[in-house]
Amino acid sequence: MRRFAVRFLLLAGFAVLSLALPAAAGAAGEKTAATPDPAVSPVFGVSIPEGYRGWQLIAVSHRTDNKDELRAILGNDIIMKAYRAKTLPFPDGSMIAKLAWKREPMKEFAGAWMPGVAPRIEFMVKDSKKYASTGGWGFGRFIDGKPADEAAHKSCFPCHQANVKDHDFVFTRYAP
Amino acid sequence: MRRFAVRFLLLAGFAVLSLALPAAAGAAGEKTAATPDPAVSPVFGVSIPEGYRGWQLIAVSHRTDNKDELRAILGNDIIMKAYRAKTLPFPDGSMIAKLAWKREPMKEFAGAWMPGVAPRIEFMVKDSKKYASTGGWGFGRFIDGKPADEAAHKSCFPCHQANVKDHDFVFTRYAP
Repeated sequence: MRRFAVRFLLLAGFAVLSLALPAAAGAAGEKTAATPDPAVSPVFGVSIPEGYRGWQLIAVSHRTDNKDELRAILGNDIIMKAYRAKTLPFPDGSMIAKLAWKREPMKEFAGAWMPGVAPRIEFMVKDSKKYASTGGWGFGRFIDGKPADEAAHKSCFPCHQANVKDHDFVFTRYAP
Repeated sequence: MRRFAVRFLLLAGFAVLSLALPAAAGAAGEKTAATPDPAVSPVFGVSIPEGYRGWQLIAVSHRTDNKDELRAILGNDIIMKAYRAKTLPFPDGSMIAKLAWKREPMKEFAGAWMPGVAPRIEFMVKDSKKYASTGGWGFGRFIDGKPADEAAHKSCFPCHQANVKDHDFVFTRYAP
């Protein structure tokens, strides 16, 4: 009799939980649908990957056309392995972070330039199924930790596609 | 009787080894003394640290006075921890790698510049006892994997001392 009572209470508990949980999930889901998640990029849904600042260096770059910025391009372990093995296309799970800083004169050494203000960080995330229509890549551009708008994100892939189709749509080459 | 024979042979073996090994080590030592070790820097005896290309990024820089180079400054785990905790002076065991590349136009994107030929790599190694007379830092400059000459290495510390004494003789600041 006691065993039956215990079983009944357990079953009743699960029944209450299984009724309550979908309702709670539904509420959270509705909220997400109503207001876009501020932590992910529009179009692609890419968020800032945890620990990206500790990733290894792929290369550096300098942009001088419409901005004067120094950049560091970092990669997670999956893409670093692929770069070193010269594996193309890059495997799913590959991630790239592009850190940018305004180029600023180093006050201690005339003729040397260092990172100043960081106007944005950008990411590329490889998922050949999820992002099949954009070469397998999802893009995320963040300004002060917030994603840039939809128009900005729609401009990513056409430029990569036009210029670096032969390198799996990635501009950066590994700098030994 | 058999066990005694085995023991005797083992002992004899060790005796031969212990006579032979110091002689071999001595020969290697004499060779080192006669011809400088090609793998370490003069003055400081700094070698290229294993795995440095996988270290985390401290910052990037650009040099435009007597050369046009993009640089990446990497740090081992000990100095990265110190940079992030704003610990000064940097602890013993701290190591910095400065990778340099000729700045080269990126053919796929006008107005973007990328790493070209790598003319040298440089290292700073913190050992406050060993390098007490140079602020605790040993220096190593390598060109095509070979250390630069004594004059080059004697010029390192005076410049660091004159310009960045207030930052434990290190030019590079952490770029978030």
